[in-house]
Amino acid sequence: MKTIKAYVFDAYGTLFDVHSVIKQCNKLFPNKGDELSQIWRNKQLEYTWLRSLMGRYVNFNQVTKDALVFACKSLGLSLDFSKQEILMNEYLKLKDYPEVKNVLKQLKNNTRVIFSNGSQDILQPLVKNSGLDQHLDAILSADDVKLYKPHPASYTHVLEKLQLKREDILFISSNPWDIAGAKSFGFHTAWVTRGKKTMDELNQSPDWIIQDLRGLLEIT
Amino acid sequence: MKTIKAYVFDAYGTLFDVHSVIKQCNKLFPNKGDELSQIWRNKQLEYTWLRSLMGRYVNFNQVTKDALVFACKSLGLSLDFSKQEILMNEYLKLKDYPEVKNVLKQLKNNTRVIFSNGSQDILQPLVKNSGLDQHLDAILSADDVKLYKPHPASYTHVLEKLQLKREDILFISSNPWDIAGAKSFGFHTAWVTRGKKTMDELNQSPDWIIQDLRGLLEIT
Repeated sequence: MKTIKAYVFDAYGTLFDVHSVIKQCNKLFPNKGDELSQIWRNKQLEYTWLRSLMGRYVNFNQVTKDALVFACKSLGLSLDFSKQEILMNEYLKLKDYPEVKNVLKQLKNNTRVIFSNGSQDILQPLVKNSGLDQHLDAILSADDVKLYKPHPASYTHVLEKLQLKREDILFISSNPWDIAGAKSFGFHTAWVTRGKKTMDELNQSPDWIIQDLRGLLEIT
Repeated sequence: MKTIKAYVFDAYGTLFDVHSVIKQCNKLFPNKGDELSQIWRNKQLEYTWLRSLMGRYVNFNQVTKDALVFACKSLGLSLDFSKQEILMNEYLKLKDYPEVKNVLKQLKNNTRVIFSNGSQDILQPLVKNSGLDQHLDAILSADDVKLYKPHPASYTHVLEKLQLKREDILFISSNPWDIAGAKSFGFHTAWVTRGKKTMDELNQSPDWIIQDLRGLLEIT
């Protein structure tokens, strides 16, 4: 896209499959992997929103741990320290979706950055383990402003870091609420559906809807 | 409780069963009632948090309508205007839980109020239809401050309306996140579990855990 100066990617669910934890969940808690992963992710998101609203920020690593504790309690699964370590460690090696690396390479004439709720302590190892660090110019985190997406202060952080204007940004996320937040803020937005069918009813529509990142190569 | 000057009740899920819509959902969409009601409620909550974070407030009636639209779309159910009206109308006649009226009567020596995310346009008809208006001193709404719970500004509204201090309030809710928000704000809190087993991991514990409102009569 000619007027775009930077591609800004959400990380969890967009570049990385948060549900790649299912395999290890199933090893520790047989047949509970799908359900555990689902509750874990849902609560992780809820806690980012609730803590931002309450004014009780803790970083994404802690939120993720808290959500795991909740998920296990709610399913009656006994999470000891060792199991917690094993599962939290999975968050540092989530799989990147198959097309991601190749598409990032092809976008190399533009600035390519991650903007994530993830704190650097878990985001940097993840990006490094996946090898995506070779194809990214920066990793930005909402942790710097202690307010999670979709709070406008979080998206503002991207502009300050990149020294760009809202209309210079194409923001890419698979999370409908994140797309709504970014669009409401004034970014151009591409919703990567990744199999999801239903956009959130927040009165904000994505500018583009693509199935995976290869769709970005068609946006001109 | 001797030091308590007001009992402040959450409405949806605490005094009124939000899932009493299931029967009508099943009439319009056979065998889909449980799932529809679950998604509808979850999205309703999500949208209150997301809109508060985004700074895009719309009232609870609108949020509830939006959540219903999402829920139907996500399940592939065709929601025409007439069905939407029928289901939204159910929100004005949700059932109060069986013990509510009797307990409210017994607490009559204290101030008894509702504090809800619900806007007055849907809250007042609901309370009147249930007959609970006879046993309540006021109906307060987060709509007055245009920020939903658990934002501290919402709970502050209660203090301003009642001219009381945080420690004068016993806040009662079945919603774990609402209990966490109220406790974080400084209210005394009683979590009415209503069958739920797992408190949210938001580093805030309720002062009392009771199964239904009758538990309030034991708090002295």
